[in-house]
Amino acid sequence: MEQMGLLIVLSGPAGVGKGTVCTALRARMPEIVYSVSATTRQPRQGEVEGVNYFFKTREQFQDMIARDALLEHAEYVGNYYGTPRDFVDRTLAGGKDVILEIEVQGALKVKKNFPEAIFVFLLPPSLDELKQRITGRGTETQDIIDTRMNVAVEEMNLLSHYDYAVINDEIDAACDRIRSIIIAEHCRRERFMPYVTGMKTTIEKA
Amino acid sequence: MEQMGLLIVLSGPAGVGKGTVCTALRARMPEIVYSVSATTRQPRQGEVEGVNYFFKTREQFQDMIARDALLEHAEYVGNYYGTPRDFVDRTLAGGKDVILEIEVQGALKVKKNFPEAIFVFLLPPSLDELKQRITGRGTETQDIIDTRMNVAVEEMNLLSHYDYAVINDEIDAACDRIRSIIIAEHCRRERFMPYVTGMKTTIEKA
Repeated sequence: MEQMGLLIVLSGPAGVGKGTVCTALRARMPEIVYSVSATTRQPRQGEVEGVNYFFKTREQFQDMIARDALLEHAEYVGNYYGTPRDFVDRTLAGGKDVILEIEVQGALKVKKNFPEAIFVFLLPPSLDELKQRITGRGTETQDIIDTRMNVAVEEMNLLSHYDYAVINDEIDAACDRIRSIIIAEHCRRERFMPYVTGMKTTIEKA
Repeated sequence: MEQMGLLIVLSGPAGVGKGTVCTALRARMPEIVYSVSATTRQPRQGEVEGVNYFFKTREQFQDMIARDALLEHAEYVGNYYGTPRDFVDRTLAGGKDVILEIEVQGALKVKKNFPEAIFVFLLPPSLDELKQRITGRGTETQDIIDTRMNVAVEEMNLLSHYDYAVINDEIDAACDRIRSIIIAEHCRRERFMPYVTGMKTTIEKA
């Protein structure tokens, strides 16, 4: 049975390990396509157009904003970054799932523009664990750590806007949970109604 | 994080392979508890009370019906069969998931009495495949096969009352889908709201 692909939005507070989980998931589910962002920043050595980013001029990017061609966008240190809707739409129409890894505020913008996506929130195993991950290299001041922890806790309160939560206690377990969520979403009853209606028509004609 | 267990109701038309899938799932997910039915029929050689069935007298069973102690029940060739609510409730409260394998009409009764259960419908890969499975040993008349096929197609139209559909094309794939549904349901955001609220309280007190 041919199905449309699903957009899975993977989000969570800074330090929770979104990138690590995504890399591990890529290896385990090579059939999934990762959303490619558009940006106005200069390509770095080795970066490939359409693979790492869609590189745009400032004018092109502003035109995309005006045409509502982005699922979300933000400006960061003088450059635009955003998620082109077209790439996602075309991939889903081809029957492939797309994963979009994004911070919490961006995910909420995607939800407004693409409410049918599956929103997954990555949670730390505990606040202590998150603090350790944020403290990381030990180069941050106590003030910065406190601010980041407060932001993380505020963001965790936005869990209510998400469909699923996955605790990132262990990378294999977290990947297995995300994979399960994707498979389960493909098994939702609504997706099978045409299949069953088709069977009914077949037997009535027989 | 300690969670309540989930009741998973696995159903589908006769011939679709519910029993085979359940047996395979048991081997793959030994942590899941299978619902034990109550019955008024006599125990057979080797059957153990509380393992194969809860054996009841007709009076005891009728008393359970009157007390609303069954999630569903039916009479079949002069004997009562039913699903005791108490066994399910106690197992879920202990944090274990319960699987209930049941035909379609029984599942709809369970839905009335236990709407928070997860309802999974097992579908045949095709009508031809279902016909082959129903024809089976080749001892059935054409009339009986036609009737069963019509019942199966009518039952498949009741898919709209279920949460998920799983095509039983290959036993390993079907088991993996059901396992994924169970894991995904444990990741539903609602189940994590207390966890997040707890974190917020911790940091505010700090």
